[in-house]
Amino acid sequence: MTAHSQNNLSIVALAGGVGGARLVDGLDRSLPPGSLTVVVNTGDDFRRWGLHISPDLDTVMYTLAGLSPEDRGWGIDGDTFHVLAEARRRGVDEWFQLGDRDLVTHLSRTGSLSQGDSLTRVTANLCKTLGVVRPILPMTDAPRPTSIVTQAGEEFVFQEWLVKARAAPAVKEVRRQGTDEPSPAVLDALDTADLVVICPSNPYVSIDPILTLKGVTDAVRNTRTVAVSPILGGQAVKGPLATMIPEISGYAPSAKAVAMHYEGLLDGYAVHPGDAFDAPFPILETNTLIQSKEDRVRFARELIEFARSL
Amino acid sequence: MTAHSQNNLSIVALAGGVGGARLVDGLDRSLPPGSLTVVVNTGDDFRRWGLHISPDLDTVMYTLAGLSPEDRGWGIDGDTFHVLAEARRRGVDEWFQLGDRDLVTHLSRTGSLSQGDSLTRVTANLCKTLGVVRPILPMTDAPRPTSIVTQAGEEFVFQEWLVKARAAPAVKEVRRQGTDEPSPAVLDALDTADLVVICPSNPYVSIDPILTLKGVTDAVRNTRTVAVSPILGGQAVKGPLATMIPEISGYAPSAKAVAMHYEGLLDGYAVHPGDAFDAPFPILETNTLIQSKEDRVRFARELIEFARSL
Repeated sequence: MTAHSQNNLSIVALAGGVGGARLVDGLDRSLPPGSLTVVVNTGDDFRRWGLHISPDLDTVMYTLAGLSPEDRGWGIDGDTFHVLAEARRRGVDEWFQLGDRDLVTHLSRTGSLSQGDSLTRVTANLCKTLGVVRPILPMTDAPRPTSIVTQAGEEFVFQEWLVKARAAPAVKEVRRQGTDEPSPAVLDALDTADLVVICPSNPYVSIDPILTLKGVTDAVRNTRTVAVSPILGGQAVKGPLATMIPEISGYAPSAKAVAMHYEGLLDGYAVHPGDAFDAPFPILETNTLIQSKEDRVRFARELIEFARSL
Repeated sequence: MTAHSQNNLSIVALAGGVGGARLVDGLDRSLPPGSLTVVVNTGDDFRRWGLHISPDLDTVMYTLAGLSPEDRGWGIDGDTFHVLAEARRRGVDEWFQLGDRDLVTHLSRTGSLSQGDSLTRVTANLCKTLGVVRPILPMTDAPRPTSIVTQAGEEFVFQEWLVKARAAPAVKEVRRQGTDEPSPAVLDALDTADLVVICPSNPYVSIDPILTLKGVTDAVRNTRTVAVSPILGGQAVKGPLATMIPEISGYAPSAKAVAMHYEGLLDGYAVHPGDAFDAPFPILETNTLIQSKEDRVRFARELIEFARSL
């Protein structure tokens, strides 16, 4: 909202897991220092073996640190699994894949939180040990767990639905519990942003948890905002979104259905070739598949150019 | 206190770390099922990286499971250290040696405790996953941390004094905080014991934490009790006891000084050759160095025979 030169946009990206992390990585490689802040969903956070696990924060951190594997959406590339192997040998209940190097993140986070540090500070320290310099902000310091109510009437903690139940049970409703206070740092970042980028993350379980925090939707509405569609040709690149859209909204999965979900917030929208539609805002139609590092940078530059033109 | 045949003694062993674990291992290999219960010090328990770590419980469990290394007093033989290596790489503060397989114990314990299980139940479950069948009872379910007050007037949590400060600062006093309630299972075991064995553990920081729990000293006093000296020829086999005795009691470190500390409790006492003294109870003078499995069994059999003769 502050007046900045077009060459020095102050950008806040709202991100979930893999898709968000990849766009953020492209933005990170395309923007000067000090211009990008990433606000990350903590609705997927859960406790396992007494550890505080923050899947989306980890995915974004590891991606910016260049540690994410190309072939899976979690953990550290080339990690070993000695701890997990021992847990299996002993028959200790386990279903969450924890690598040995990855474990240090959870141990360090859990230890610091138990000593009274905020998740915001803990995340900043973890970023430092990983050599990540962009500010990565958890959306909240207190827990705000997402749960999935299925059409059969069961309620799952999000990670149990996603990983343990393999996202199979049809979704009726997404619920949020716990705090609705964003961290002070998140409000500060939004307050000075020239541009909000809604990453190609799941709107229901990655972006809504951020947008529904007190004051966030208003701040986004009052700032130039572009979103990137997480649906390409009717498919999600990753995750359960393509089946969730019809289950929750009744619409077929499409870039347009996601835009309708963000009604009133968008000043521009980026979609994959063939996904454009009649909209009350400009649409950037370009290759939004951003798996390689080159594609991430190419797309991030196009997106920034598009946003500047609005 | 119950009348049992001499061939079927019901024995409760009070144990700390390595020395206690080795005697308990000898007893375990010498006694029929159902005759031995081990009560273990939890005064050394501490939290690290958010994990609940119980060094003495782990040493006893691993020793009975046949997993303890011969050449060091902690962890699992042949364990790997991938997690620790990553912590060092990242510069995450660490001083406690945690192996990858060992970590599963702490993770599993911490997870179960955080779900409301008692330490007694958690320990029983850990024993099951490790194939240990003898009952191993933590002395308390709630925390009872030992701290060391140094002659310089500093107060250390026990493990920080032992590991981080390498037991160097001279000891003025040993303190205990937290609960003084033994677990119900400990009182039950003492209630039906024919014989209490005080293992060759540190009297100040391993045995006193158990004896000073409500009702325990009375139960021990009312039961036939033998102790094994942790001092052999003026030296401790392991740990800081030989320097603690003069610092705390003013006496030279000796088997006798330890027996005086247990005044009024002993019906018999086992010491290393050359360590016998004039005592108001019978003394078994024999090789009490029990590092090998063969020595553990040989000594345990002598000790049981000695106790039966009292």
